[in-house]
Amino acid sequence: MNKIRKTDIDFFESALAKDSDVISISHILEWIKMIKKEVNSRVEQIPIEKMRLWKFDDITGNIVHESGRFFSIEGIRVETNWGNVLRWEQPIINQPEIGLLGLITKKINGILHFLVQAKIEPGNLNVVQISPTLQATKSNYTRVHKGKIPAFLEYFNGDKSVKILLDQLQSEQGARFLRKRNRNIIVEISEKEDLHIPNNFIWVTLGQLKELIKYDNMINMDTRTVISGISFGSYGTDTLEYFSALSNLKLHNKNLMHSMLNNEIFLNDFDRIISWITNLKSRFDLNVIHIPLRSVNDWKYDGLSINHKDKKYFSVIGVKVEIGNREVISWDQPMVRSIQEGILAFIVKPFNGVYHFLVQAKLEAGNLDILELAPTVQCLTGNYRIGQNEFSVPFLDDVLNAKEDQIWYSALQSEEGGRFYKENNRNMIIEARSDFPTEVPDNYCWMTLNQLSTFIKFNNYLNIAARSLISAVSF
Amino acid sequence: MNKIRKTDIDFFESALAKDSDVISISHILEWIKMIKKEVNSRVEQIPIEKMRLWKFDDITGNIVHESGRFFSIEGIRVETNWGNVLRWEQPIINQPEIGLLGLITKKINGILHFLVQAKIEPGNLNVVQISPTLQATKSNYTRVHKGKIPAFLEYFNGDKSVKILLDQLQSEQGARFLRKRNRNIIVEISEKEDLHIPNNFIWVTLGQLKELIKYDNMINMDTRTVISGISFGSYGTDTLEYFSALSNLKLHNKNLMHSMLNNEIFLNDFDRIISWITNLKSRFDLNVIHIPLRSVNDWKYDGLSINHKDKKYFSVIGVKVEIGNREVISWDQPMVRSIQEGILAFIVKPFNGVYHFLVQAKLEAGNLDILELAPTVQCLTGNYRIGQNEFSVPFLDDVLNAKEDQIWYSALQSEEGGRFYKENNRNMIIEARSDFPTEVPDNYCWMTLNQLSTFIKFNNYLNIAARSLISAVSF
Repeated sequence: MNKIRKTDIDFFESALAKDSDVISISHILEWIKMIKKEVNSRVEQIPIEKMRLWKFDDITGNIVHESGRFFSIEGIRVETNWGNVLRWEQPIINQPEIGLLGLITKKINGILHFLVQAKIEPGNLNVVQISPTLQATKSNYTRVHKGKIPAFLEYFNGDKSVKILLDQLQSEQGARFLRKRNRNIIVEISEKEDLHIPNNFIWVTLGQLKELIKYDNMINMDTRTVISGISFGSYGTDTLEYFSALSNLKLHNKNLMHSMLNNEIFLNDFDRIISWITNLKSRFDLNVIHIPLRSVNDWKYDGLSINHKDKKYFSVIGVKVEIGNREVISWDQPMVRSIQEGILAFIVKPFNGVYHFLVQAKLEAGNLDILELAPTVQCLTGNYRIGQNEFSVPFLDDVLNAKEDQIWYSALQSEEGGRFYKENNRNMIIEARSDFPTEVPDNYCWMTLNQLSTFIKFNNYLNIAARSLISAVSF
Repeated sequence: MNKIRKTDIDFFESALAKDSDVISISHILEWIKMIKKEVNSRVEQIPIEKMRLWKFDDITGNIVHESGRFFSIEGIRVETNWGNVLRWEQPIINQPEIGLLGLITKKINGILHFLVQAKIEPGNLNVVQISPTLQATKSNYTRVHKGKIPAFLEYFNGDKSVKILLDQLQSEQGARFLRKRNRNIIVEISEKEDLHIPNNFIWVTLGQLKELIKYDNMINMDTRTVISGISFGSYGTDTLEYFSALSNLKLHNKNLMHSMLNNEIFLNDFDRIISWITNLKSRFDLNVIHIPLRSVNDWKYDGLSINHKDKKYFSVIGVKVEIGNREVISWDQPMVRSIQEGILAFIVKPFNGVYHFLVQAKLEAGNLDILELAPTVQCLTGNYRIGQNEFSVPFLDDVLNAKEDQIWYSALQSEEGGRFYKENNRNMIIEARSDFPTEVPDNYCWMTLNQLSTFIKFNNYLNIAARSLISAVSF
């Protein structure tokens, strides 16, 4: 795993390119504005039973498409010995197929550029967000069903010869999706290949994407998850010290570079981290039983949407969508609307000159394998105002009370706009105060970015919230 | 991941110690014989409905314990787009908890020794087999239920302070168990700690265990899976060449050492292997639906056992067990009895002076995550005689027609004797003929032992058949 790969260097160079001659950040922002102005989009909430082509199933009350395809909203009963609530029922999105999130890359002026599109999704805050080259369902990319072939599919299904740079299976939101995963894939085409690029596509560097993640709701979740899987190689301390001396890095950047690239300095070695995960997975059970949506305790359809009896967590709503100007595309679909804004935050702290991220092992109902690695603080649905939370959330105060100079990153980010209606979460990376404890509770563990990057490669380790934050780390 | 760990060296030294002053191989064999002679064990097949404390559930016909504990035999319906059979129903063992398989180790005369026991299990061929220090169910080790505390539990549940050398979650047989996993754990105690060792326990080196695996049905499955997870570190080519020049290794051993320890030479790099797995998992579905055992198609209870209509695959039987001489322990339980002997074989071939193992991605009904990495040939249940198999099995001829000098390893091995009644599989490692192709079908991939060892660390990659074979690799 330790040889120097050309791909690692290409990715790193692209990450360091914070702007590009192809199109500058300021032009990208204008381009997004223009597309937003050009397109009309209307999303209107309608009663669930009024949605065209969707219905409540006669027997279960599940919300299903009349064709039996796409996805459904079903009920689950969850039993666990984890956390404060040991048994609950909830609606959940069931979409039992692996989708494809793909990025095409190509060297332009020697720097790897990523082909992204400005995409409108019904749930998007900001209407238009920057999306991967291709977002396709399995039916799309295996062509089981006929229908319009998505643009650039041929670069991901084996028809065109490409170089695969990254190809991973990654989970979606475990609190909302039942064991949903996507294939995250990055391919490279030849510098010489002249792609015909539609108006709503542009070539950007990885560094530009990381700059744009600093804006609220600009880079969509699918783009963030794909680029979060990019690693830049692993090197020894000596090599990195030599390099950082040459490039005269500031201490902060030096510690961050070591966190990303150094595989010799860490508080906990791999075997210890794996033992920590094994121990937790052995102790905690997650038992998920399918139940009819109609019989889910504490949740009720009020003639418009399905809500929790205390108006907590989220609602399942129906929407009528109209997108376009001359040609208008229109459809209805169910969506999940969160009741409150959430917060996702990593606390980081340097040990031996290397930044470590405080990782939480977290159980969510839709997890394939009980626990996933999550940010230090993740209260997606809870009310996180102090004193008003249902249960105390460890390290929440450290995040909420962080001073300006501790905040590396703070932006609002949406969840995937095809399923989540204007879901908005505060994403933060916070440097711990110097007196922040090294000892942490049982289900927390300090890891370097290099270690997190290795876990991302293997399936079902980092949850989507952790990956979203890692995508925002820039150098 | 790449620093030299003292533990890696300790494990490697123990693996190289093919015999020990503590107890020699020949004495171990005598000791086993003696224990076999001393103990009386009687296992008698009885009709399923006659088993004490077990019953057919009134509604489902599932075979359950009256307390609701232990395990049950249930029905599943499997739907997949993998392989030749796209839909089937079968009985399966459901034991939804993570068991513990633990080994205590300790340095004796400077060499790491493993504490193993001679254990009688009802399904054992050979009656007595060498087992880990501790095999415990979750109820045992979390002490949810009262009852006798298993010997040495305190070294694995946190009561005694130990050094954890290995701690992994590993799967069981996917064709028989529904998503069953065990925690595989190795701990080290101080050289000075004087354990009281019962008569049926001994201290052996890793090298001795690997010698004993060459005998039929001597080392039980639980021991084999735990030691299969042991890795010996990763080093560069230069370091290893220097070492092998010093130690004057034969070419075969040199190529094998490189396969185990070299992380610079391989046909396929990690990212490529992960892409290969991602691609297959994205393409193939595994949908498992619980159904009542009573309604499983093609399987019937004949008043004694549950059998497939064509007497293929396996039977579910009831047994009455009596073990002991003065004090006799007696119980009844269901077991799975295989109809035929199976074959598990890895084909290996050197590339660039490093042995590569031909790994198969295999779908089995009980897999947690669709596919696991399996040996080149695994026909656990099929009739593998040429011309009589249901479907042709790739590379089977290469295994069956292997010449004496191609066979590195060949022995009969049982599956776990607590659930499987005298299941006997031919385990083989075969060196490919020199004209064996490098190009292999889509669902096969060449990997070094060093790569396989890394995958073993992360959950749910190698299946139990692959791990059983890897445990037999000796140096």
